[in-house]
Amino acid sequence: MVIIMKPDASQESIAQICSVVELKGLGTHIVKGAETTIIGLIGDKTKIVDYPFEVMEGVEKVTHISESYKLVNKAFHPEPTVIKFDNGIEIGGKKIVVMAGPCAVENQEMITAAANYVKSAGASFLRGGAYKPRTSPYSFQGLEVDGLKLMYNAKKEAGMLMVTEVINERSLEAAYDYLDIIQIGARNMQNFALLREVGRLHKPVLLKRGLSSTIDEWLNAAEYIMAEGNEEVMLCERGIRTYETATRNTLDLSAVPVLKSKTHLPIIVDPSHGTGKNIYVPSMAKAAVAAGADGLIIEVHPTPKKAVSDGDQSLNFDEFGQLMEKLKIVANAVDREI
Amino acid sequence: MVIIMKPDASQESIAQICSVVELKGLGTHIVKGAETTIIGLIGDKTKIVDYPFEVMEGVEKVTHISESYKLVNKAFHPEPTVIKFDNGIEIGGKKIVVMAGPCAVENQEMITAAANYVKSAGASFLRGGAYKPRTSPYSFQGLEVDGLKLMYNAKKEAGMLMVTEVINERSLEAAYDYLDIIQIGARNMQNFALLREVGRLHKPVLLKRGLSSTIDEWLNAAEYIMAEGNEEVMLCERGIRTYETATRNTLDLSAVPVLKSKTHLPIIVDPSHGTGKNIYVPSMAKAAVAAGADGLIIEVHPTPKKAVSDGDQSLNFDEFGQLMEKLKIVANAVDREI
Amino acid sequence: MVIIMKPDASQESIAQICSVVELKGLGTHIVKGAETTIIGLIGDKTKIVDYPFEVMEGVEKVTHISESYKLVNKAFHPEPTVIKFDNGIEIGGKKIVVMAGPCAVENQEMITAAANYVKSAGASFLRGGAYKPRTSPYSFQGLEVDGLKLMYNAKKEAGMLMVTEVINERSLEAAYDYLDIIQIGARNMQNFALLREVGRLHKPVLLKRGLSSTIDEWLNAAEYIMAEGNEEVMLCERGIRTYETATRNTLDLSAVPVLKSKTHLPIIVDPSHGTGKNIYVPSMAKAAVAAGADGLIIEVHPTPKKAVSDGDQSLNFDEFGQLMEKLKIVANAVDREI
Amino acid sequence: MVIIMKPDASQESIAQICSVVELKGLGTHIVKGAETTIIGLIGDKTKIVDYPFEVMEGVEKVTHISESYKLVNKAFHPEPTVIKFDNGIEIGGKKIVVMAGPCAVENQEMITAAANYVKSAGASFLRGGAYKPRTSPYSFQGLEVDGLKLMYNAKKEAGMLMVTEVINERSLEAAYDYLDIIQIGARNMQNFALLREVGRLHKPVLLKRGLSSTIDEWLNAAEYIMAEGNEEVMLCERGIRTYETATRNTLDLSAVPVLKSKTHLPIIVDPSHGTGKNIYVPSMAKAAVAAGADGLIIEVHPTPKKAVSDGDQSLNFDEFGQLMEKLKIVANAVDREI
Repeated sequence: MVIIMKPDASQESIAQICSVVELKGLGTHIVKGAETTIIGLIGDKTKIVDYPFEVMEGVEKVTHISESYKLVNKAFHPEPTVIKFDNGIEIGGKKIVVMAGPCAVENQEMITAAANYVKSAGASFLRGGAYKPRTSPYSFQGLEVDGLKLMYNAKKEAGMLMVTEVINERSLEAAYDYLDIIQIGARNMQNFALLREVGRLHKPVLLKRGLSSTIDEWLNAAEYIMAEGNEEVMLCERGIRTYETATRNTLDLSAVPVLKSKTHLPIIVDPSHGTGKNIYVPSMAKAAVAAGADGLIIEVHPTPKKAVSDGDQSLNFDEFGQLMEKLKIVANAVDREI
Repeated sequence: MVIIMKPDASQESIAQICSVVELKGLGTHIVKGAETTIIGLIGDKTKIVDYPFEVMEGVEKVTHISESYKLVNKAFHPEPTVIKFDNGIEIGGKKIVVMAGPCAVENQEMITAAANYVKSAGASFLRGGAYKPRTSPYSFQGLEVDGLKLMYNAKKEAGMLMVTEVINERSLEAAYDYLDIIQIGARNMQNFALLREVGRLHKPVLLKRGLSSTIDEWLNAAEYIMAEGNEEVMLCERGIRTYETATRNTLDLSAVPVLKSKTHLPIIVDPSHGTGKNIYVPSMAKAAVAAGADGLIIEVHPTPKKAVSDGDQSLNFDEFGQLMEKLKIVANAVDREI
Repeated sequence: MVIIMKPDASQESIAQICSVVELKGLGTHIVKGAETTIIGLIGDKTKIVDYPFEVMEGVEKVTHISESYKLVNKAFHPEPTVIKFDNGIEIGGKKIVVMAGPCAVENQEMITAAANYVKSAGASFLRGGAYKPRTSPYSFQGLEVDGLKLMYNAKKEAGMLMVTEVINERSLEAAYDYLDIIQIGARNMQNFALLREVGRLHKPVLLKRGLSSTIDEWLNAAEYIMAEGNEEVMLCERGIRTYETATRNTLDLSAVPVLKSKTHLPIIVDPSHGTGKNIYVPSMAKAAVAAGADGLIIEVHPTPKKAVSDGDQSLNFDEFGQLMEKLKIVANAVDREI
Repeated sequence: MVIIMKPDASQESIAQICSVVELKGLGTHIVKGAETTIIGLIGDKTKIVDYPFEVMEGVEKVTHISESYKLVNKAFHPEPTVIKFDNGIEIGGKKIVVMAGPCAVENQEMITAAANYVKSAGASFLRGGAYKPRTSPYSFQGLEVDGLKLMYNAKKEAGMLMVTEVINERSLEAAYDYLDIIQIGARNMQNFALLREVGRLHKPVLLKRGLSSTIDEWLNAAEYIMAEGNEEVMLCERGIRTYETATRNTLDLSAVPVLKSKTHLPIIVDPSHGTGKNIYVPSMAKAAVAAGADGLIIEVHPTPKKAVSDGDQSLNFDEFGQLMEKLKIVANAVDREI
């Protein structure tokens, strides 16, 4: 249940409603917009279902949210969330952001080269993995703290921000001071303890969709983060598992309009993991922009054939540069910018 | 195996190669391009694998096609197929075609109104079902021959061409003189007898992807049609079956670049069946154009809420008109036209 | 809606109810059991929803069936259907039937050898394909009429009945006099024209589940057959398409108890197509019996490695003989016999 | 690569091989059987591929394991693993173990009643959740430490062992002294940090299959645990995610014979989560035993309709008691015991 206040509602009337709700044993979550304040009720609504909030002072209307996710829900927060960074970059606004870089950080030279190139081509975030969750325990698991440092040097030199995956509390702690966006990978989308952990922090979170998660489960996973207080969450579609083997995963681009109808959070699309083959990445990147995505995350490697992981799905510099030129045109066609 | 001839190869050298191949017990399929002739070998290649075709007169090179589909294969026919209609419309060229109309033909008034409107908004093909394959035997199964006549009147009045589904030999025979494109529905994608039947005819075929068919199976289904002689086949992505229930099907837009890399046939996308909900259709239509589709097939109904079938996924006239305006801009952004 | 009559209800009271129903514009379907008669109403129930059938003479009770399938529904026909053959064999009774034989009929010698062996080991039906729906048009498509004749000779010699697949009206006509059970394959489960065709005939039908059909769609497909008058339908689980590639399909054995709760039709399980690998067939055959299947259909070939199709999933004679011994014990453990 | 020693190989010859391997920069893992010792090589085999181990003293033969999982591999450890508990119970031997109890621990009375009943019916392990990973942050998350204590009291009173899920390091630490088997749930199957953590402990681990994990990924997840030193791992099939909605998940019973062909680890089946409906549980429990499972884990609740979670899939006491009687007979039919 959500109580929407009148534009001129006073602090007193807001406080009065909250005290009624709390007396009944429920929690509240308050969103203050430029004009309106919305009070969300958290807990067992059956205790309060008949209470006449509509006639209380300052109340505009009361609506019911049937979905189990509340804070994430567009009905609760109709305006799109825009996440703002210190350098002026915004995610969720008119401008579509591009995050680019290698699958894994390998050494200083390659990550710096990648950062400088993708920045020059128009990317604002450097992506790269220092902690790699791998199917086999014997595969390369990332450079860990060393990788974070190399990536940090590269982003500083290129004047970018960085997004990197954390896989548990330990890696979260190690990475926190280096990163600008905390990435939760597909395999950890329902690692609820980790979601709660990042929910208590003060940096934006990029939450990848689980390998076979429904959109409903994904939004509930985002709710775990928001329920702890961190409101800067973005959702990243990266392909789902289906019977089709022509692509590594099946990029579910319909998730973009579906999410736009259900949540106010920004949506990022990963065409690299979504297809698993670099020749398909440009088409799907353009399609994602046309579908309404707020951002793209794309794997770029100086020499994809030599990459320690995921070389098949990485673009080289030239391919990425050409793609960025085309993406700018497609973005304009749907009233956005890159 | 495919033998590519030199630009100046004589009729005699082509004939000589064919006679060698046939002597060995294999068949041939000849594609004459503007400059080059290509000879495809059909049958058991083990009989002929060592034959020195490379040194025969007029031969440019010999390539091996490992996929089970040959005529459909881009390696065999590198130029994109363009299907041409009497009124000058082309499918597979620079211009993206739009097919639009109701799920089912209901009566003269509604189909004529739909035809006139979608034509005015830029569609060149009228879509509509007279034979409806329905899950339950007790659901509306279409107006059959009466529906075909109503649809034919409407397309004539509006100056359009028409595409409609056939479900067996009897409906194929009934519909053949009315339609301009023969539609094979998802449930019949591996109805091999029906595929062979349409393969012997001389009208273009729109082959929808099966509900859970792989791209490989789909291309082999197209091969069934082409192997009988009908070379005018287009492939229609309409969503695949996955675990996700937020959409009716999961529209696999990656199929567009995958198909472009494997076949020369035109690719149509159906965002209506692909999503099952009209509010998601515009985003996915734009995404399909950006991904490189050669055409769209969209359900449009004068009053979607009153539709006898699939009202949830139909656009009304205004929604379709507005979408067409936006699609023209997206098409231009990827060097196409609508 | 279903009207269940009292045990002593007279012909007149049954006739009276039917005439009321028909006057209202609906159809009826009557099932006479040993003690009870049930009248099913077919058509638009909104016309009749308030009619006081409960107080008419001879009526025991009135129940509503919400599923779109009626004749197939257990609520309509609570007793299990038992299909009886001239030689005394029954499907759906206490005895579990085994259908066995090669994927495809190859020649007289192999099919006769297979028939004699599987009969001696306890199978009562010979399976084998004369019309093979194949993904590629260039794969072996079956011996067609010649294959039917070879198979017919073999079943006669061995004293068996035979089940074979038909793929369209032409093959149905050719095969009808040879076969004892008409098999509709997975790819034709929603070939509604073919379902209607076999619905008008007087031989039992084995309806395989579509590659990615839901149980609800499958029961509706069976309803297409029953709605035309043929009440001898059995359902065959043969694996569904999932992301897992360790097996050819994922055998959905849960379909057995699910179907048992929803329909009165007999259920057959095909562990050969379900797994695609002969080493997994014995375990899944035993599991199917334990889960409550009424029959098994198993691929057996004299020399699996030389089979023209599906050799990987065929048992050889010894493997089949040993499996039959074990199946008898498992059948006894669940109060059945083989 | 795996080196199998002769039965009479001396300690010296084993040590000599290990020192060669380690000199080349690889690790070793030694399995001593009753008669034979096997040496597994861990690391980059390209460094050692040509080394003539075959001619070294005591070597019987050298085999190559192409799968990425080694310690888990049947080729490496051909004998089935049998996990032994202090009270004489074994998992993986002739006797099939049954784990039973409620989804979640609710209070002392219900967990004690459940323990006493399931023990009397033949179960040897009490199951129950104290830490519940739930889709929504607002759903009941388990009684945590209090739940562990209640469950511990119940198992002690009933004379059972207990299995319970841990979801992160904190819950693992809290639960370790109470539990006899550490359960890793489906959502954490690829929580590699947690897998490593339990790999360093000295209690058996029940590793549930991920919601849409392949069998290959699952075996690699088990390898993460074994690679840290914990060799007592059992695999639990609990249904995979497919398009079918008639059941909560699709129980992939084929996984039982597939796993039996690839690994030596014991296999447990969970028909409760696998089907999600209690009426389907008995059929699938019997099928699992017939397919060759080494154990079952079944949800049982004194009053399923009042359960705080998963009541739909829980058996009541009578249903469980009757099922156990039938399972004993099926177990005997496949040369096992319960």
